[in-house]
Amino acid sequence: MADKGLPVPEGYAPKDEDSLPAYLAGAPAVAARLGGAQADWRVREVGDGNLNLVFIVDGPAGGVAVKQALPYVRLVGESWPLPLSRAHFEQMALATQAKHAPGLVPEVLHYDETLALIVMELLQPHIIMRQGMIKAIRYPGFVEAITDFMARTLFHTSDLALPADEKKAAIAAFCGNTALCKITEDLIFTEPYMIAENNRWTTPQLDGIAHEFREDGALKVAVSRLKLKFLSEAQALLHGDLHTGSVMVTESDTRVIDPEFAFYGPMGFDIGAVIANLLINYFSQDGHAKPGDPREDYQTWVLEAVEGCWNEFRRKFLALWRDRAAGDAYPHILFTAGAGPEALRAEQEVYMDRLFADSIGFAAAKMIRRILGLAHNIDLEWIEDPGARALCETRCLRLARDLMVNTENYRSIEAVTAAARKARDAY
Amino acid sequence: MADKGLPVPEGYAPKDEDSLPAYLAGAPAVAARLGGAQADWRVREVGDGNLNLVFIVDGPAGGVAVKQALPYVRLVGESWPLPLSRAHFEQMALATQAKHAPGLVPEVLHYDETLALIVMELLQPHIIMRQGMIKAIRYPGFVEAITDFMARTLFHTSDLALPADEKKAAIAAFCGNTALCKITEDLIFTEPYMIAENNRWTTPQLDGIAHEFREDGALKVAVSRLKLKFLSEAQALLHGDLHTGSVMVTESDTRVIDPEFAFYGPMGFDIGAVIANLLINYFSQDGHAKPGDPREDYQTWVLEAVEGCWNEFRRKFLALWRDRAAGDAYPHILFTAGAGPEALRAEQEVYMDRLFADSIGFAAAKMIRRILGLAHNIDLEWIEDPGARALCETRCLRLARDLMVNTENYRSIEAVTAAARKARDAY
Repeated sequence: MADKGLPVPEGYAPKDEDSLPAYLAGAPAVAARLGGAQADWRVREVGDGNLNLVFIVDGPAGGVAVKQALPYVRLVGESWPLPLSRAHFEQMALATQAKHAPGLVPEVLHYDETLALIVMELLQPHIIMRQGMIKAIRYPGFVEAITDFMARTLFHTSDLALPADEKKAAIAAFCGNTALCKITEDLIFTEPYMIAENNRWTTPQLDGIAHEFREDGALKVAVSRLKLKFLSEAQALLHGDLHTGSVMVTESDTRVIDPEFAFYGPMGFDIGAVIANLLINYFSQDGHAKPGDPREDYQTWVLEAVEGCWNEFRRKFLALWRDRAAGDAYPHILFTAGAGPEALRAEQEVYMDRLFADSIGFAAAKMIRRILGLAHNIDLEWIEDPGARALCETRCLRLARDLMVNTENYRSIEAVTAAARKARDAY
Repeated sequence: MADKGLPVPEGYAPKDEDSLPAYLAGAPAVAARLGGAQADWRVREVGDGNLNLVFIVDGPAGGVAVKQALPYVRLVGESWPLPLSRAHFEQMALATQAKHAPGLVPEVLHYDETLALIVMELLQPHIIMRQGMIKAIRYPGFVEAITDFMARTLFHTSDLALPADEKKAAIAAFCGNTALCKITEDLIFTEPYMIAENNRWTTPQLDGIAHEFREDGALKVAVSRLKLKFLSEAQALLHGDLHTGSVMVTESDTRVIDPEFAFYGPMGFDIGAVIANLLINYFSQDGHAKPGDPREDYQTWVLEAVEGCWNEFRRKFLALWRDRAAGDAYPHILFTAGAGPEALRAEQEVYMDRLFADSIGFAAAKMIRRILGLAHNIDLEWIEDPGARALCETRCLRLARDLMVNTENYRSIEAVTAAARKARDAY
């Protein structure tokens, strides 16, 4: 396997169920977590990721998850090479996130740069949030946790919290993660708006709207403006792929996983990812509802979560700005006396409004790519009847197009959720 | 000397007039340029820079300029350490600029990383443009050359011209130039708006306006918004210090020198630097005019140059965008057919309008720092009568304040030059 995809360093080889225990036995923190002896450990390759090998290892004392990068995209194969360095960027991001948002990411027990392999605590009985949401399970702690995660990781890696030299060093440290960024640039910001081999959609039902979007000058300009922001605005360290498939939950615990797309980019990209994936789930519920399993109450909960995600993020981010502003931007010393505090407060509102506009723009881009691009969401994919699925998808696309092109009409998250309800009624 | 300021690498020592010829004799390209033998070379330390050692060396066949960084700010001394690495960033920037804007920067003949020493062609009979402008000398080729320089260097290092991975690598390569960026962050965007030891101004005449600016909430918010842009928007490789003291001219040749502040930042910062320094000169002319040496015609020329700088830059930048767009932003393929070309043309106008707003904001910041901050311009400093100087400075400050706070009122460069004329009449 190691000879496929990109060249690999001396010493790299993909692990398998047979070779993994002996390797883990050499990592003291891992062996301690598993307990007992090597012969007692049970290894399963769960392979539920698109990009990497993933093993779950259980021992007498506990379990670990092992994630190893391959020199290509697992889902596609050696024809789509992808550098092993994504593991390097992922463990750096996990370390930064653990520092700023403790308890909200998995603990890293061991990292091997040569093997591109990360061993983490096993999250159990957590499940992928997306899977729970498809079953209409509510996560009462989600809004609190995800807004903590976003507010803390974005604020503390921004110019509001960091001196410029520290931030520039962090930017440089993530500048090499271009192959992963390129996936986003192509699959989110470009291909859904053109004829591209990767694209797929519910056909023939969405053929018309897919064609319409490819011909929509205003939409293509809007998504290109977002792409430019993604390419050039190094506001904070992003997770980079913050959808509900990157969140593991129980009813009382929430963890964010898989930050291999991490880089310094525009904050709205992470916030938009959360909002988009909740809205996709909202629209998908009509395809899952059955006479004995109505979903309207759950849809209400989902839209409340959308509102909470922005409103709580905003509140927490502003609180951090008030209490922890140690960065070089908006220097404290200019705003302590006289007209300063009042002027800064007004500017903070403007700043948050601009971030809100970015967020719903990026949310729209993510809603569209999940319906017209390469990677789809099981929220919609698991709706078996194509007609029902296409209806949910059409509502989602119509809302997304308006969010992206007429962003300035949306002045609050409540305006967004109201428009989501309206789109559900209108189509 | 080498033990002052920051630690220096093994092998670093400042050169002097005695030690330089033997060193240069070992650099074949330099020896060839000078001609003759080492004994024929005449060395002068000209020391007209604020930061570095500068030597001019003349030989039988030609001359060279030698610039060597010191581990501290030359103007201030060892109490203000500054890393030698600025020479590394300068020669990288010179190489990039020479590639994109050939003939508009000095040719580099030799670079020594350990000595932080660059040997360049000697520009003669060029003089520093600022000195010529104080004498009311017109430079008919300036607008053409400086707009070529800005359009080409900014466009070709931006996401409009580069694939994302190349641009990210270039960003990372300049991320280490933080000490020089910090000078800008402090001296331009922060200190003029607070009580700071570095500040000085024409006193007591400007005491009132300096106090007023320190209390001006809207102004402090506006300059902080620009600072955030400077800190976080990696749009293109900037010269970073593009004032008329960084331009060497004859009537027919224009060269941009001294890009040691180079980094990836917002394009408007370079454009604004040019506009600001022309406007400062415009206002300063009233302090230099005498009965036998009226300056009104020259002031007309200066404002025409201001207009030309923006309008020609805009035209050339858009032409490059139309003809040479190979970057990942606004991908060509989305805008070739149907509504695409028209939509892109409209978006290019929006893009340029936003860049114009950035440019006049940054111009305003630079006008203010040259009057209330640490580093002043001889355009104004050489006006001997403090009352006359203060009047010129007040006009300049009043215009700058309005440009920065009410940027959206200025929709064209002609609106800016009209406001400059008005400020000259009003105060």
